[in-house]
Amino acid sequence: MLQELFTPSVQHVLDLAGIFVFAISGALLAVRKNFDVFGMAVLAEVTALGGGLIRDLIIGAVPPAAFTELGYFLTPLLATALVFFLHPQVERIQVAVNVFDAAGLGLFCVTGTTKAYEYGLGLTSSAVLGLATAVGGGVLRDVLANEVPSLLRWDRDLYAVPAMVGATIVALCIQFGELNALTGAMAAVTAFALRLLALRYHWRAPRAYNRRSAAAEES
Amino acid sequence: MLQELFTPSVQHVLDLAGIFVFAISGALLAVRKNFDVFGMAVLAEVTALGGGLIRDLIIGAVPPAAFTELGYFLTPLLATALVFFLHPQVERIQVAVNVFDAAGLGLFCVTGTTKAYEYGLGLTSSAVLGLATAVGGGVLRDVLANEVPSLLRWDRDLYAVPAMVGATIVALCIQFGELNALTGAMAAVTAFALRLLALRYHWRAPRAYNRRSAAAEES
Amino acid sequence: MLQELFTPSVQHVLDLAGIFVFAISGALLAVRKNFDVFGMAVLAEVTALGGGLIRDLIIGAVPPAAFTELGYFLTPLLATALVFFLHPQVERIQVAVNVFDAAGLGLFCVTGTTKAYEYGLGLTSSAVLGLATAVGGGVLRDVLANEVPSLLRWDRDLYAVPAMVGATIVALCIQFGELNALTGAMAAVTAFALRLLALRYHWRAPRAYNRRSAAAEES
Repeated sequence: MLQELFTPSVQHVLDLAGIFVFAISGALLAVRKNFDVFGMAVLAEVTALGGGLIRDLIIGAVPPAAFTELGYFLTPLLATALVFFLHPQVERIQVAVNVFDAAGLGLFCVTGTTKAYEYGLGLTSSAVLGLATAVGGGVLRDVLANEVPSLLRWDRDLYAVPAMVGATIVALCIQFGELNALTGAMAAVTAFALRLLALRYHWRAPRAYNRRSAAAEES
Repeated sequence: MLQELFTPSVQHVLDLAGIFVFAISGALLAVRKNFDVFGMAVLAEVTALGGGLIRDLIIGAVPPAAFTELGYFLTPLLATALVFFLHPQVERIQVAVNVFDAAGLGLFCVTGTTKAYEYGLGLTSSAVLGLATAVGGGVLRDVLANEVPSLLRWDRDLYAVPAMVGATIVALCIQFGELNALTGAMAAVTAFALRLLALRYHWRAPRAYNRRSAAAEES
Repeated sequence: MLQELFTPSVQHVLDLAGIFVFAISGALLAVRKNFDVFGMAVLAEVTALGGGLIRDLIIGAVPPAAFTELGYFLTPLLATALVFFLHPQVERIQVAVNVFDAAGLGLFCVTGTTKAYEYGLGLTSSAVLGLATAVGGGVLRDVLANEVPSLLRWDRDLYAVPAMVGATIVALCIQFGELNALTGAMAAVTAFALRLLALRYHWRAPRAYNRRSAAAEES
């Protein structure tokens, strides 16, 4: 019931859109790393479906949604084909990709939190899993590509915090019995807007207190 | 029933053979990375059992076969001991290792697909999990050794495609009700032969369309 | 029943202490890698809870303890805050951190083995999962930080072996019906003491037989 924040068809279209843009980011990294077309497909699939997969394994929702819904599997292949033939053009519209990625982030932190709560987890754990749904795919993408996850790096604009805020809003709405299509959408939009602002104004998180001066020199 | 493609004892011997050769590849990478004997054992276990472990977690077959069958756990230790004492000789017969590894690939894509289907997954998902069973251990091996997974690299001979073909043949056989010991064996042999041909003729997959000329210079 | 080696409150305090020191090691690595405060928190959580998470997924204990017990989630955040403000002081007491980490290692290999056995795994598998519980978080930490897992490196003092000994003692005690608070504590103390001795005397494991002379030059 909570799952049905939006009408099923709206929800489904939003899910596929989020999967698509995450897959684009995976395929683009594969191109930069000089992987072949199968490496691109693997990285696109893992980026798009990895966060939900981690969540589903942890809450015991097996087989995970990624393996029961054919559209979830085919969408990243479509993204791979697009990047394969058009990657200079796709890179040129990096701004658009960033905007869509922010939309995926906003959406997945909301749906991840509600699904975890539906499976009986507590509010804090549900919010953590909402965050994991939103950022997990990107972490798996970077680990497979043998890079330091951009989620962890201090020199990247805030990524986890917007998802954390969105997931927390959803958890609070559940707590007070106010989760519905409107408040769910507001949580997603808030995360989306915070991510765009972080990109626009290069918001970053602090590093360890005594590290900042020293690190400024070495990096 | 589908699981019983071959008689249980034949199946078991084939499984152990596949595990053994995958473990050899893990232990050899550990030697190249200068790991100690425990690092060799860990990498051998992960390479040999990792693909099946991922599949079993996703289809909800817990505890996974790797933890219920003592022979599955002991075989990689045997491979570790062999590589520990004889690794220059083992490296010298790299051709033989490649042939056995191709046999493991062919076998695991068949058994992985049938097991996933037995657990109620759809045909496409079953084939994807067959592929994951065959290549997952090697990916985990490379991630733990802090290398770019050779599965993803364009400058390696085709590895995923033979397993993909084998898994697809099995899925088609299931679809048409024709999966039996003969067709299952043919699927495994097809994947095995394709991998050997890829090694022999250095078949590779293309990289992104506009990347090829530029990348030729930089790599 | 086996789980209740110690009184619940003693067990709980020991668990939280182990989680705390593992989290410290994660947060310290994050500082060394120049991650921001959220990267520190992620690495602290993963290091502290990752081993138990892997065990729980494999034995089918979902949702894992890490997601049902709020204290397990909050403790790494506390460790993160401590390291954030005081990391030069924390690094200076590296010896103390090592001692606590050895205590966590000893404790987790005991509780991991007993929990796996409670869930119906065999004695060997239970001991393997006890080892995985003790060392898994550190491996995930190193993989996320894009480093070769220190568990695998030959130039690090023995880490897996003490946990392996502790887990084996527990499995033998179960086998002979002698597992109780006393023998459980003795197993934990044995692992703890072996790890401290390995640190003190720089015990290392051998590398592959023919590798040693050659590797001595190159490293």
